[in-house]
Amino acid sequence: MSHSFSVEFRHRVIFTRGLLTPENPALIEALRGGSNRLVAFIDAGFADAHPDIEARLAAKLLAAPDAPRLTACHIVPGGEQCKNNRTLVDAVVAAAEEHHLCRRSWVLAIGGGAVLDAVGYGAAISHRGVRLVRVPTTVLAQDDAGMGVKNGINRFNKKNFEGTFAVPWAVLNDADFLTTLPDRFWRGGFSEAVKIALLKDASFFDEIEGKANAVRERDMAAALPIIERCAQLHLEHIVRGGDAFELAQARPLDYGHWAAHKLEQLTEHRLTHGEAVAIGVALDTEYSAQAGHLPRESSDRVIGCFATLGLSTWHPSLDDPRLLSGLEEFREHLGGNLCVVLLNAIGDSFETDIIDPMIVRMASARLRDTQSIAADRR
Amino acid sequence: MSHSFSVEFRHRVIFTRGLLTPENPALIEALRGGSNRLVAFIDAGFADAHPDIEARLAAKLLAAPDAPRLTACHIVPGGEQCKNNRTLVDAVVAAAEEHHLCRRSWVLAIGGGAVLDAVGYGAAISHRGVRLVRVPTTVLAQDDAGMGVKNGINRFNKKNFEGTFAVPWAVLNDADFLTTLPDRFWRGGFSEAVKIALLKDASFFDEIEGKANAVRERDMAAALPIIERCAQLHLEHIVRGGDAFELAQARPLDYGHWAAHKLEQLTEHRLTHGEAVAIGVALDTEYSAQAGHLPRESSDRVIGCFATLGLSTWHPSLDDPRLLSGLEEFREHLGGNLCVVLLNAIGDSFETDIIDPMIVRMASARLRDTQSIAADRR
Repeated sequence: MSHSFSVEFRHRVIFTRGLLTPENPALIEALRGGSNRLVAFIDAGFADAHPDIEARLAAKLLAAPDAPRLTACHIVPGGEQCKNNRTLVDAVVAAAEEHHLCRRSWVLAIGGGAVLDAVGYGAAISHRGVRLVRVPTTVLAQDDAGMGVKNGINRFNKKNFEGTFAVPWAVLNDADFLTTLPDRFWRGGFSEAVKIALLKDASFFDEIEGKANAVRERDMAAALPIIERCAQLHLEHIVRGGDAFELAQARPLDYGHWAAHKLEQLTEHRLTHGEAVAIGVALDTEYSAQAGHLPRESSDRVIGCFATLGLSTWHPSLDDPRLLSGLEEFREHLGGNLCVVLLNAIGDSFETDIIDPMIVRMASARLRDTQSIAADRR
Repeated sequence: MSHSFSVEFRHRVIFTRGLLTPENPALIEALRGGSNRLVAFIDAGFADAHPDIEARLAAKLLAAPDAPRLTACHIVPGGEQCKNNRTLVDAVVAAAEEHHLCRRSWVLAIGGGAVLDAVGYGAAISHRGVRLVRVPTTVLAQDDAGMGVKNGINRFNKKNFEGTFAVPWAVLNDADFLTTLPDRFWRGGFSEAVKIALLKDASFFDEIEGKANAVRERDMAAALPIIERCAQLHLEHIVRGGDAFELAQARPLDYGHWAAHKLEQLTEHRLTHGEAVAIGVALDTEYSAQAGHLPRESSDRVIGCFATLGLSTWHPSLDDPRLLSGLEEFREHLGGNLCVVLLNAIGDSFETDIIDPMIVRMASARLRDTQSIAADRR
């Protein structure tokens, strides 16, 4: 007996401002039709900048008679550290038990990508899946991580080694939450926008390039369309790509990510994911040029765009001899043969199963030199 | 933005005999198209009765040039105990790391339902899902648990509190593996067959009733069609029911299971799942009769059928005042309103959200009296 069957999912994403203001309906609408219990987990980094967040959330829920109550609220340490052990995942599972959550109850995760990943994992394995509402509070979480249908934690010093595929109930992106973000995390979020533009949309790259100065200066009017477009492209890849759970040959949008994941590991996460992605994307772009696929001027535009955004395109760990083992770890995580994406042109990518270590070293050397020149000019 | 999308799964189930004999192609066919690494986890209870199992498995794989190699083989303690802590789950995740499994590698679980659940959970969360091949070795695992798209472990003394929905790559049911099963586990497996017949197929109940004596005497020719039909009905419910991951109002085939799960917990698993299901099904069947839905003679037929199969329909823990809290735990696990299935007739069920504790006690009392009479007669 061999049966095919399909499972239907719904992926709801809202872009809004003032999510917790009295007149904004997005949160209450997202929480319709479930149980009246909600447990919130809030990234401490975000709560520090928004000390009234718990009170505002409680008031918002209380003001809507048919919304769930704020059964419990936990402020939790965020950042990649929260994915390096089971503490946060177990806290979510324990809360599901303590507060009698059922599959129709709510777990609300407010924070950066790491908190969304760890809390999402805890929600996914409690009763095999309590409803997860994500409120991403970083650029990276709003334009990329929050769109994903994944969750997980790091094990054995390997990123996302343990986790599941699970579709969030809703993702609510509040642009106002980005105004308090430290500069470093603001800038880092645009590396994923550059990445997806390079893969899918040359005119989107033109737009990012044209606005890069304004984005670095935190001009929200310039930045928001980029964040939304980036989120939209990620979302479309997942829901229209035909393989959301990566059951076939996995083809996630992981341009530049083999090196990025390894750089995060080698620097023990002193590089943020966004910063590491900028370097990894620069590396594979420069590799594409050195290998003769991509015109030199295109590669220089990409590196220049990162520089204007305030993102480094080189790090000493690129010279670490362990960098290349990132290729095998990347292959192992996705399964099957090695599959690295390279560029023929901005907006035009192809896949290869061979990466030449010599060209990686040449690309890295050029990134180092370019970076030095840029630093000298400053 | 709200996007619907679907994910396509394939559920392969094979009924065979002599799975590991040289001429049987089922295992090798199931393992096509992946990586060449396979880690096996074998239920110690089964390995005790089949001390050559690892050698036979290794030889079988070695004889097929394109089959994966037996990268590692672990004999692991089985039974419900292996679901009461993380030991086995973590062993699977650690093996995935140690042996460099990727999403296209293989985890082979050979054993009873508990081993399949815990090993399956470990496989599901490693790299977000390594391919799981189940070889169920008990009647219950072959006719029910092995068909499911679930896995998990117990937490907080609550059955399957933690786990995921995940579709196995293949399920290989070898009838020969059932010949060494202790009587108690043989008999216990038929309670799920009675259950699903009561829900879906009156003529299947007639068949079980007619063969109950032969089944108890371990007549394989009588038993096998029952096991296969039971497995098929479970599988069809999952793949044709339209809600395999129980995302809508969960409607698993859990007749009699609210009490069964609670009885397992109250007896600290001295009752096996199969034994507890017989009692739980008897209870809800007798309840259906006492509440005026089901003809008395039908209820008596069901209880008589269990008795002929050698399955008790009463246990002192039915009188435990904590039994009724099983209703709330059952509701909480599935989410939404309480939904208990009762019978109008054999093969004709309906759902209710109200269970009268008084009628539960009356039903339990009658089961006790019936059991005493049956015992006196023996």
